Amino acid sequence: MAGDVRVEQLQPQLASSGIDVAVIRVPENVLFVTGHFVQIAGAGFVVVPAEGRATLLVPEYEAPEAAEVWDGELETFPVIRNDRPSALEVVRERLEALAARHRNGGTVGYEGSSETLAPPAQAGEVNAVARPTQRLIEEAFGGAELTDVTELLEATKAVKTTRELEKLEIANEVAGFGMHAFKEASRAGRTEVEISAAVESAITVEGHGYRGARVVRGYATIYSGPDLQHGWQYFRSRPRRVEPDELVMLELGTLVDGYWADHTRTVVAGRASSAQRAAYEAVREAAAAALAAAVPGATGGDVDAASRATCASAGFEQFPHHTGHGVGFRLHESRPQLVPGSTHELRENMVIVAEPGVYRAELDGGIRYEDAAVVRPGGAQMLGGTDYDLD
Amino acid sequence: MAGDVRVEQLQPQLASSGIDVAVIRVPENVLFVTGHFVQIAGAGFVVVPAEGRATLLVPEYEAPEAAEVWDGELETFPVIRNDRPSALEVVRERLEALAARHRNGGTVGYEGSSETLAPPAQAGEVNAVARPTQRLIEEAFGGAELTDVTELLEATKAVKTTRELEKLEIANEVAGFGMHAFKEASRAGRTEVEISAAVESAITVEGHGYRGARVVRGYATIYSGPDLQHGWQYFRSRPRRVEPDELVMLELGTLVDGYWADHTRTVVAGRASSAQRAAYEAVREAAAAALAAAVPGATGGDVDAASRATCASAGFEQFPHHTGHGVGFRLHESRPQLVPGSTHELRENMVIVAEPGVYRAELDGGIRYEDAAVVRPGGAQMLGGTDYDLD
Repeated sequence: MAGDVRVEQLQPQLASSGIDVAVIRVPENVLFVTGHFVQIAGAGFVVVPAEGRATLLVPEYEAPEAAEVWDGELETFPVIRNDRPSALEVVRERLEALAARHRNGGTVGYEGSSETLAPPAQAGEVNAVARPTQRLIEEAFGGAELTDVTELLEATKAVKTTRELEKLEIANEVAGFGMHAFKEASRAGRTEVEISAAVESAITVEGHGYRGARVVRGYATIYSGPDLQHGWQYFRSRPRRVEPDELVMLELGTLVDGYWADHTRTVVAGRASSAQRAAYEAVREAAAAALAAAVPGATGGDVDAASRATCASAGFEQFPHHTGHGVGFRLHESRPQLVPGSTHELRENMVIVAEPGVYRAELDGGIRYEDAAVVRPGGAQMLGGTDYDLD
Repeated sequence: MAGDVRVEQLQPQLASSGIDVAVIRVPENVLFVTGHFVQIAGAGFVVVPAEGRATLLVPEYEAPEAAEVWDGELETFPVIRNDRPSALEVVRERLEALAARHRNGGTVGYEGSSETLAPPAQAGEVNAVARPTQRLIEEAFGGAELTDVTELLEATKAVKTTRELEKLEIANEVAGFGMHAFKEASRAGRTEVEISAAVESAITVEGHGYRGARVVRGYATIYSGPDLQHGWQYFRSRPRRVEPDELVMLELGTLVDGYWADHTRTVVAGRASSAQRAAYEAVREAAAAALAAAVPGATGGDVDAASRATCASAGFEQFPHHTGHGVGFRLHESRPQLVPGSTHELRENMVIVAEPGVYRAELDGGIRYEDAAVVRPGGAQMLGGTDYDLD
């Protein structure tokens, strides 16, 4: 079962922080603790006591799926139907009962600082934890003092379990369907939005059912031509047609059952110039150097420096955006940060991306390349990838 | 310019609540106040004083676009580059300067209860307002007391301006590209995920550039066959192939430049049975009755009752999920709720959806239909729509 490992990791941390019980509602944290990916944002709670069994609360119709991955306590509440007690009433009662069981004079943990959030399965609307959830927990726990457990969760999330690594491998392989569609679609005459639609379609159609994947979505953005010299900024796909021999860049987020992959690819719609080819090689080498440097005990700053030095030795300046970051429960996890001077220490089974880039007018654009890898003693090991080149 | 009307509406409300100034960060609220749709979640602030000019703070490279819609004060901060002061440092300094200008012994407003959030342009990651933003504002404003302005914003957002209605018309028309693709793609032998990909592709490819649309994304979910008798639950597109003469349902969220449309369509992949046709007519009539009842001064409960009575008079029981809700700055606005007993009062230029549904084994599935409309004295007027039938 998925949840046991994480509950066992969290319980001593709660106990040593004087926390009786933590109430967790952010979808990526419910996934992290239990392995269950909720459909509707906010409609899923997991209550983790410092001692004893944790309880997952989900909508009635999600119970069978939750039971596939979670063998702690499982309780349900109604949603959507107006002819039953409201979800909030039932959740409040359940939390009151759990408060009676788990309170022991200490504080109650909540996700007070979870400001960066991954969407749930129904991705068009997200639920955060702010004052209303804080009040709900305070009231259900009879005025207990709340303690922010966000940092504790983020730190524990950064190192992945064997099961999570398998899920992230699947997400990265599904991303590969999109990256291959990108290469195929990046031809002169196509518009950026046509290419992005081709990438997202491939992910949807080929991803669902792949190695058991149920909830799959690609977030593809395409940018092309000379404007790519500003391609370090966030860009948007446009109805612009790609001209022959122009650079085309894909920025891609891929969601599979709550686990995220983050990729960048750059190709030429025709033949690359020698300057573009040299920059591409430099960027690929910088990415490889970052991953090689990503060993347990290295810092985020070490990995960043390895990437920049390699890029510089090939005669290019790596752009001063981050070299990379942690990834998995969302596109950008809070640690490790792979930036100059970062003291975040890498640990085995952290998942990171490296995404060095070079953006220059002389290239008629910009080049960035990004893959994910698992931190291992011999250097980080790639998850998925593609086998095609710049042109 | 877009923002002036909303700032003028908010300022007297702030003044009468004893609030000197409100600091707003949730992307849909920044859009609401200024007309500018931020690229990155959380990277955009608008500071609205009870008196004087409001200030929009955006990343440097978003300034030209923000200036197209916003003629209040405009300030920028750097993002992404690690060779400049961090975004947070600059934002903090700017907020301190604005605090000095606008503080006058009162409280400071913040979005303390904004728990339901629409994604920003980069939709794979969302930013909420929780403890970190609260601390940032408290510190920048020298320990000022904070007041939650979420309800004030939600109530003011519910009634749309002329410009917002035009934007919502565009969003609903772009949704139409997807709904027509749905009808075309809903054939026996296609999988649910193939149909959802066709819908989202049409929205991406045909939507970008349509009447100036820049940021376009469809969130389509398809469900088919006898399982649709549970189609009132949230469902997921599957790799399941549609069989001849089966019901197929589309649930569709459409984002255009920060404005949202929400639709449902049901069709038959072949020929409908007489029972299905009768239920479809009943659902369409119930939806029309809801919109006809949606006049200024009516309550959400009145609209709900009109829909249910019409459905019942056609011999069908409308399912006890909501009949509808407000829509626009996100898929589900907090008001008006169109549910039994809702006392939310409808006002002219609110935008609502009606989405009655019937789900029964005898239909071999379920039927739901949903469109948006603008509340007007003669009954709500449709935004967009489609001209096809059940089969």
